[in-house]
Amino acid sequence: MKVEKISELTANRLSVYLRCLNELSAAGVKVVSSEELAKRYNLNSAQIRKDLAYFGEFGIRGVGYYVDNLREHLRKILGLDREHRICIVGAGRLGTALADYHGFKKSSFSVVALFDNDRSKIGQRVGNVMVYDFADFHKIASQKQIEIAVIAVPADAAQAVLDEIVKAGIKAVLNFAPVSLVADNSVKVKTVDLTTSLESLSYFLSQPMNGKNA
Amino acid sequence: MKVEKISELTANRLSVYLRCLNELSAAGVKVVSSEELAKRYNLNSAQIRKDLAYFGEFGIRGVGYYVDNLREHLRKILGLDREHRICIVGAGRLGTALADYHGFKKSSFSVVALFDNDRSKIGQRVGNVMVYDFADFHKIASQKQIEIAVIAVPADAAQAVLDEIVKAGIKAVLNFAPVSLVADNSVKVKTVDLTTSLESLSYFLSQPMNGKNA
Repeated sequence: MKVEKISELTANRLSVYLRCLNELSAAGVKVVSSEELAKRYNLNSAQIRKDLAYFGEFGIRGVGYYVDNLREHLRKILGLDREHRICIVGAGRLGTALADYHGFKKSSFSVVALFDNDRSKIGQRVGNVMVYDFADFHKIASQKQIEIAVIAVPADAAQAVLDEIVKAGIKAVLNFAPVSLVADNSVKVKTVDLTTSLESLSYFLSQPMNGKNA
Repeated sequence: MKVEKISELTANRLSVYLRCLNELSAAGVKVVSSEELAKRYNLNSAQIRKDLAYFGEFGIRGVGYYVDNLREHLRKILGLDREHRICIVGAGRLGTALADYHGFKKSSFSVVALFDNDRSKIGQRVGNVMVYDFADFHKIASQKQIEIAVIAVPADAAQAVLDEIVKAGIKAVLNFAPVSLVADNSVKVKTVDLTTSLESLSYFLSQPMNGKNA
């Protein structure tokens, strides 16, 4: 398998393929061709073949991909074959919603700590997750072997929070604050912009024949 | 401009390009080539040229794209040159966090209503947004000319909520419940899986040289 860096967009597409394959597997489908996959999930079959060829030969010519086999491979490529311990900084509405997000509970990601600087929140629990003082971030992150930090604080506090996270040696950060953050090249910061999903719906509504309530 | 249907993945990429161009514009950059755009944001330059060529000729050979001109075009293509009125169903942690999300406030999306079936929440306000009884969905959605509904209810309630939304004539739905939903072909349902973003971080951590705390 090649170990070159692939782009974030490719990694995102692999995530999408994995999600489709999980559904197919749950539905009892054993083999799927790139054309079937593309048609069923509105993807591009040439792109699927290209993305997967990059990691070696998973397909069987004239047959397609073995669903469970390909799932296993994608899980390994994405590093999902082991648990990742994550924390959430910001125990406001979004942070506590994320701590309680059932999608994580089915995944390889475990939320092991929340952080805030609000005295009235520190020491509380959200489900099973304790809210810690952000002043103790370095100590707790190391004790709990946290790999990924999620930022769910207001935009104007996000850069300072990121700086502390980076100082504690965390290399992967998911940022929900609607602001661009700056970090060292050795740290991967991914900003989730919730408007992106709305924009593809807006695109759909703007097409002729769609979104016209007859 | 071609009016053929493009895939959701293409629409998502156009959103990403728009976001990059917004940043460049804010930084005072007037012209950018596909190579510069690709390098700066870790995208694929051939893909950028292909995606944009699909909608007509925006680039100037040997020069690049005029940033503000291309932004305008992308905003039109994505239907962002007008306001979209959205509502959020579910006034729990996630729903209220979304109603209060500052990213929307800078965008062409306005949250005009929240809905819940919990008597203790109905009639309350989150910021400027009123929580209505979901039993009145059809009436309020029509009064407030809502185009897009966001589902932020528990997974086991999501399909029933979607069915009501569709009955009210809404054609575009963003689903945050971690479950696959079924609707008529004339309705676009986009499910946001918050684990997808974590998966690309997991991929990053699994690469040699990354995520190793020296």
